[in-house]
Amino acid sequence: MTLYVIGLGLCNEKDITVRGLEAVRSSTRVYLEAYTSVLMVQKERLEAFYGKPILLADRDTVETDSDAILHDADTQDIAFLVVGDPFGATTHTDIVLRARAKHIPVRIIHNASIVNAVGTSGLQLYNFGQAVSLVFFTDTWKPDSFYDRIKENSDLGLHTLVLLDIKVKEQSDENLARGRKIYEPPRYMSIPQAVSQLLEIESLRDQKNLASKTTLAIALSRVGGDANDQRIVCGTLEELSQQSAEVFGEPLHSLVIVGKRLHHLEVDYAQEYAVNKETWRRVASQVYGCALE
Amino acid sequence: MTLYVIGLGLCNEKDITVRGLEAVRSSTRVYLEAYTSVLMVQKERLEAFYGKPILLADRDTVETDSDAILHDADTQDIAFLVVGDPFGATTHTDIVLRARAKHIPVRIIHNASIVNAVGTSGLQLYNFGQAVSLVFFTDTWKPDSFYDRIKENSDLGLHTLVLLDIKVKEQSDENLARGRKIYEPPRYMSIPQAVSQLLEIESLRDQKNLASKTTLAIALSRVGGDANDQRIVCGTLEELSQQSAEVFGEPLHSLVIVGKRLHHLEVDYAQEYAVNKETWRRVASQVYGCALE
Repeated sequence: MTLYVIGLGLCNEKDITVRGLEAVRSSTRVYLEAYTSVLMVQKERLEAFYGKPILLADRDTVETDSDAILHDADTQDIAFLVVGDPFGATTHTDIVLRARAKHIPVRIIHNASIVNAVGTSGLQLYNFGQAVSLVFFTDTWKPDSFYDRIKENSDLGLHTLVLLDIKVKEQSDENLARGRKIYEPPRYMSIPQAVSQLLEIESLRDQKNLASKTTLAIALSRVGGDANDQRIVCGTLEELSQQSAEVFGEPLHSLVIVGKRLHHLEVDYAQEYAVNKETWRRVASQVYGCALE
Repeated sequence: MTLYVIGLGLCNEKDITVRGLEAVRSSTRVYLEAYTSVLMVQKERLEAFYGKPILLADRDTVETDSDAILHDADTQDIAFLVVGDPFGATTHTDIVLRARAKHIPVRIIHNASIVNAVGTSGLQLYNFGQAVSLVFFTDTWKPDSFYDRIKENSDLGLHTLVLLDIKVKEQSDENLARGRKIYEPPRYMSIPQAVSQLLEIESLRDQKNLASKTTLAIALSRVGGDANDQRIVCGTLEELSQQSAEVFGEPLHSLVIVGKRLHHLEVDYAQEYAVNKETWRRVASQVYGCALE
């Protein structure tokens, strides 16, 4: 019948669309993609809401055993659930290609993702350049191409959405070497760590593109969550780096580096979230050149 | 109580989230923003689905009579519905600022918008630069800053999402001059017109940035619609300009100008939609430098 690839939105079980919920309820099997992103609710709560069991699809299942997911999809509806929108990650185009090859009709059900919901910060989506990912650095591995991307945006005056790393189902080197399928607890990069990594690359390269005192940034936590759950905090990179972890709360966190094309309406809207309104407006005016009243 | 600003998603009444639907049903008054975008369903169908009347909020109402919208919002829930995601247009931050000034709690309910749903073309969202808008040209007014933005993206190898103009509640010069509130029928820019305007600016400037035979583009119509309704068509700009209007079907249309950072997986995924698969792959390989099998 149909493979439904359904976006769950950002936060909890009620962020699915009505159309998506109907597709879940018509499906014989329901898979939840469980490795490129993380929903802020437990699988059990989704199951209670849908009234049916959910099968977790980890990377192995999707990449090496997609036949199991697509089994009988020519005669039954199958639902494949993805946090955010279905096309946030390459792997989801992969399952669609596999279905096409088997002549199984595919139906995409879209939803919000951080790429558009970041507008909740008050920054205009038109003023964003390419989005970048920031991965956890190790002592020996500090991939820094994200920094060049931010600079490309920044040279055009554009904002950059920085997506922070998530490690789910990670194996320790030892367990990996011994082939033991024992996984480490999930890790989520926090705002302070992200800012620290940004400034580390800046310092290693001896550049002044993201000078901590004069670069504005907006930290977003659990976008789409309830009013007492979602948090937006903005200020200079230095100000954000000085906040305690509690200020940003639980994961997931994202970060926006503000570009010079900043508009005074963006400044006005976001100042509600400023660590220090006076600094926020002063840097926007003096460094970014915004004509504020 | 609360002002709910609720994204309706892209297509029909069932694209609202479950959370959004609950908020609509708890609200005393429901407004539908009716000027920055257009939903593919009629107001009456939304009313039947919600079981309550909808008040249309045109630009005048939101910008000059927001007090009417926010009236009693301190004691009742009010819903303000927006096509796509609430933060697609500046005007929606405006209503939030007005509510804040009155100390009315605001709750944003996100949804899909073209900015993230464009991923359905198979192009990776990471590879998009800034989005641009293309307005209807007149004999005397051909604003062309969008062209510079596309070039900025293109110089970085990035894709550009081009949003096509919509004219709703437009007055003729004569009716405007005479102060008659008589409105023209809505107009929606089509793909052929958009391509023609792009190439007109290219020709006026005597540039070769969007050469029609070697620039790839993807046309999207009614993204999020049913399988027999949504259309994706890709090819060179020349190929798209040669298609009849019927190929793209009814509005709304959007266009993507493909950037040089094109990945072979993007080529493979989108070729399903190519006017001519052979041209699509040849230009991707020879002009864009994609390593195709």
